[in-house]
Amino acid sequence: MKAIKVGLLGIGTVGSGTFNVLRRNQAEIRGRAGRGIEITMVSRRNVALAREIVGDAAQVVADPREIIANPEIDIIVELIGGCGLARELVLEAIAAGKHVVTANKALLAVHGTEIFAAAREKGVMVAFEAAVAGGIPIIKALREGLTANRIEWLAGIINGTTNFILSEMRSKGLDFATVLKEAQRLGYAESDPTFDIEGVDAAHKATIMSAIAFGIPVQFDKAHVEGISQLQATDIKYAEQLGYRIKLLGIARRRSDVAGGGIELRVHPTLIPTQRLIANVEGAMNAVVVQADAVGTTLYYGKGAGAEPTASAVIADLVDITRLHTADPDHRVPHLAFQPDAMNNTPILPMAQVLTSFYLRLRVADEAGVLSRITTILAEHDISIDAVLQRESAEGERQTDLIILTHETQEGRMNTALAQMQALPTVLAPIVRLRKEELA
Amino acid sequence: MKAIKVGLLGIGTVGSGTFNVLRRNQAEIRGRAGRGIEITMVSRRNVALAREIVGDAAQVVADPREIIANPEIDIIVELIGGCGLARELVLEAIAAGKHVVTANKALLAVHGTEIFAAAREKGVMVAFEAAVAGGIPIIKALREGLTANRIEWLAGIINGTTNFILSEMRSKGLDFATVLKEAQRLGYAESDPTFDIEGVDAAHKATIMSAIAFGIPVQFDKAHVEGISQLQATDIKYAEQLGYRIKLLGIARRRSDVAGGGIELRVHPTLIPTQRLIANVEGAMNAVVVQADAVGTTLYYGKGAGAEPTASAVIADLVDITRLHTADPDHRVPHLAFQPDAMNNTPILPMAQVLTSFYLRLRVADEAGVLSRITTILAEHDISIDAVLQRESAEGERQTDLIILTHETQEGRMNTALAQMQALPTVLAPIVRLRKEELA
Repeated sequence: MKAIKVGLLGIGTVGSGTFNVLRRNQAEIRGRAGRGIEITMVSRRNVALAREIVGDAAQVVADPREIIANPEIDIIVELIGGCGLARELVLEAIAAGKHVVTANKALLAVHGTEIFAAAREKGVMVAFEAAVAGGIPIIKALREGLTANRIEWLAGIINGTTNFILSEMRSKGLDFATVLKEAQRLGYAESDPTFDIEGVDAAHKATIMSAIAFGIPVQFDKAHVEGISQLQATDIKYAEQLGYRIKLLGIARRRSDVAGGGIELRVHPTLIPTQRLIANVEGAMNAVVVQADAVGTTLYYGKGAGAEPTASAVIADLVDITRLHTADPDHRVPHLAFQPDAMNNTPILPMAQVLTSFYLRLRVADEAGVLSRITTILAEHDISIDAVLQRESAEGERQTDLIILTHETQEGRMNTALAQMQALPTVLAPIVRLRKEELA
Repeated sequence: MKAIKVGLLGIGTVGSGTFNVLRRNQAEIRGRAGRGIEITMVSRRNVALAREIVGDAAQVVADPREIIANPEIDIIVELIGGCGLARELVLEAIAAGKHVVTANKALLAVHGTEIFAAAREKGVMVAFEAAVAGGIPIIKALREGLTANRIEWLAGIINGTTNFILSEMRSKGLDFATVLKEAQRLGYAESDPTFDIEGVDAAHKATIMSAIAFGIPVQFDKAHVEGISQLQATDIKYAEQLGYRIKLLGIARRRSDVAGGGIELRVHPTLIPTQRLIANVEGAMNAVVVQADAVGTTLYYGKGAGAEPTASAVIADLVDITRLHTADPDHRVPHLAFQPDAMNNTPILPMAQVLTSFYLRLRVADEAGVLSRITTILAEHDISIDAVLQRESAEGERQTDLIILTHETQEGRMNTALAQMQALPTVLAPIVRLRKEELA
């Protein structure tokens, strides 16, 4: 059978990884797919750099539109990134009747609705396993492996940079700024690390997963996004003493206790019980836990980034398209797991309506009645306490740290209680508030 | 679109789970698959019991062949188990042009070659996600998610009964027989637990995974099968002290250092470093670690048994068949991941050629020179020592336990060394020998 011909728009780290893996493992891949898969064209503004990677094995062009215009190309792989040119090119490729593979989470989290609708219209597939958790086949698991299930929630460590930083902060007791510099030196963090450390990248991925899990459109603008740049080593240490690890989680949860239903979609540092498997995912590794009604808890773990792990996902998509392009389009795997007419508009809830438990650290005056005033405020808002840790004051000090873990409550209620506690004259510094999830 | 009609051969635990989940989540499943999936016929010798489960929702027959003969049925789900009647019925269903879904690992590990060849001949699919690790979509991950990769090895906790027993033995310090009784009382072990505790069930699953990972035929008869019934609580304790947990692993490993290549396929109790994620998989849970060249290490975790987790996998297969049956048969996912003409005959190695490291426990006379004589034997066979733990003798005792961890060596070499050590007059009891894998 004739080989499937692939064009890469952009060939940097992931592109060269894809090129190399496809060439190195071509016999195995052909043996699985039933036909060869060949990258025959690549584009990069700097054609000399592209030629260093592909040699004579593929045609190199500066203009990606030359690839899209080539009738011999069956599948376009978009690896340019961002939401500008990448969006235009993906839409043009679809309009030209090409199937598309992309690793671009930002593009899909923000413009997914437009892109998937265009693809449906033209009867082509847009595949994006590489967009979430790199080499872990989590899109496939959610979209095909768990089709029998009503998914209840998912929670993932889906950004390797922040997980590396948190692991280092904990194991070495260092502060955020120091570890960030180390991560940049080692190549785990970019020179402008904002998207990673402020949770944006994780929120793109959580947005995509929320759509697939619950059959809702991608709605990045509704996601709550909170990163780790404000996280202090002290809180990692206190959490550890209380039996918790702090991870940056992307969480998507179905809520049936809200009238009409609702979806929580949020990214923030989260305390997780140390004995949970996902709490032990260290370094730049990724993992996603999925809770579903029939199968129960499943977890998927692996490398979330890097040239070859991402290439692994890109190539899996190429093989899937090679297989599925001969199937009746109505029988292919739907882009967002559900057929378009089976999608729903369950709203994403505002944070004030989110149910979670909390870790609070209060710097308080070391005097009688302080704890009582604080616990009274919590009780008045029906927030029940799970654990309290009160440090003895250091010699000569007149203030101390008070750590409180609460049971689950509505975030809005906690906000009100926090404002009242913060106003107490015996609370001497801004209260640190982190969320805690049992993931049970 | 017309619903896909399914017939269940056998309706016990998994069958009723499948029936219930398919009914409970029918809207979600239809929304994903693009059409309804309905169980319209079920068979069970005791029709009254079957009717209790399905009511009027499906036709109940005593004779499974009535289902196979019904031209309205698109897919047959075989849930009878074993290699007798189940084999006949699966072959008859294929001959009748039906697609088949089965959870029967024994059948596929032993008769897979015959069954897959018959299915190919007739252009039908035989799907078996439920045969390995229950609800974890590990077949899908290996066969589709990791298509880009050359798989190097995989190691799995793929039998919940034995993992439950090992977890209890460790956490409560109890011996095997006591915990087995407890497991039977709780329904984690069958009244005849042989297949589970002697490693046969795990070996069936490892055999299937080895075929998919390496493109070799299923060869259960070549698997090394060793269970946990001889495992002593003492060794679990010593392993723990040395930083290891003992798990029953199913291991399949590609060996390129053997002339012509070779595959290790083995099930046995294994020491794993406690800090590995898979060492922390407790109770009846399952997990599989896969090491592959592009993606690196990935891990898949979840429930390996039970009515609804298994049903989750059965239904995922039903949805896949619903999708893929319109694809050109040459483009469907091959049963064993590789196209028939891309399979290979790399031999499965005899245990003597396996490379592994070892845990040895020797009951020795507490006298000068004992350790030296033993380490000399190991050195003479080029087996290097990783760690030694020598217990002080108890008051008044003249003998003690000597624990040795070795580095990797060939098992045949260790067998020779063991025979020599056992012959020493200062070695007072049969040497306990367990295998150890770093899984790094």
